[in-house]
Amino acid sequence: MEYQPIGIIHSPFQEPAGMPIQPAAAGDTEGKVEIFPEFSAGLKDLEGFSHLILIYHFHRSQGYRLQVVPFLDTEPRGVFATRAPKRPNPIGISVVRLQGVDGRTLAVSSVDILDGTPLLDIKPYVPDFAPGGEVRIGWLEKNRRTIRQRQADDRFK
Amino acid sequence: MEYQPIGIIHSPFQEPAGMPIQPAAAGDTEGKVEIFPEFSAGLKDLEGFSHLILIYHFHRSQGYRLQVVPFLDTEPRGVFATRAPKRPNPIGISVVRLQGVDGRTLAVSSVDILDGTPLLDIKPYVPDFAPGGEVRIGWLEKNRRTIRQRQADDRFK
Repeated sequence: MEYQPIGIIHSPFQEPAGMPIQPAAAGDTEGKVEIFPEFSAGLKDLEGFSHLILIYHFHRSQGYRLQVVPFLDTEPRGVFATRAPKRPNPIGISVVRLQGVDGRTLAVSSVDILDGTPLLDIKPYVPDFAPGGEVRIGWLEKNRRTIRQRQADDRFK
Repeated sequence: MEYQPIGIIHSPFQEPAGMPIQPAAAGDTEGKVEIFPEFSAGLKDLEGFSHLILIYHFHRSQGYRLQVVPFLDTEPRGVFATRAPKRPNPIGISVVRLQGVDGRTLAVSSVDILDGTPLLDIKPYVPDFAPGGEVRIGWLEKNRRTIRQRQADDRFK
């Protein structure tokens, strides 16, 4: 499959080390999402949503590992049970808060994404679309209390 | 960007018409996710999660439109404010329930995905990773009560 970027994500994070490892840890970190002119008509109706799902390419990730020691653990875990960027297809997804739409620029917050990241897609965040039932989060369960505080180091450089 | 499938999603849905339009409407619909042998080591630790995020390629979608009339509405909406498959990059994401792991085959339910869909990535579903705050769902708000009942027709064929 071949995909083309539809835009670029701008954030304060120039390097992986020190970044928040997921949107909930990114707090009020602000960023901009710039959509290329040829796709801007697709942004209609976005401003009614408080949260968006950004789908992007981990452009600084090279190669992949099938087992990784994630930031939230000390043991190797299967890469598909983590959000580590060194994946067979280096696709990232983040739920961010939408602060405003100005032409083809989106102001967003809770950004856990490197500056200059190529954007592949935007989808509305609709919690009601997920199936119900009790949610279990495997090896992450023991980290539940610290999820919102942790930052990245350079292990996935 | 060039991506390769890491596996194939099997479901009861051979054609778009009549499919549930999102996982919450798919109820107990069961499917299998078959991971190719070279990636199976990445499945370690997955069985502790109740829900997974599947990222896949809309292989039956041809071309794209920047504004579409979605299944849940009668007015054209910006494609990025919908989950319609005819997108600039035809990437789909669904949260499904994980029922079990048998070697490199995952038994899943709440599947709203066509049979034979190429799988690009799997991520753990961790609601705590999304930023907090009140969630507003724009044009979908008025459909909130019927989201779980609606089915697809052939408009995105």
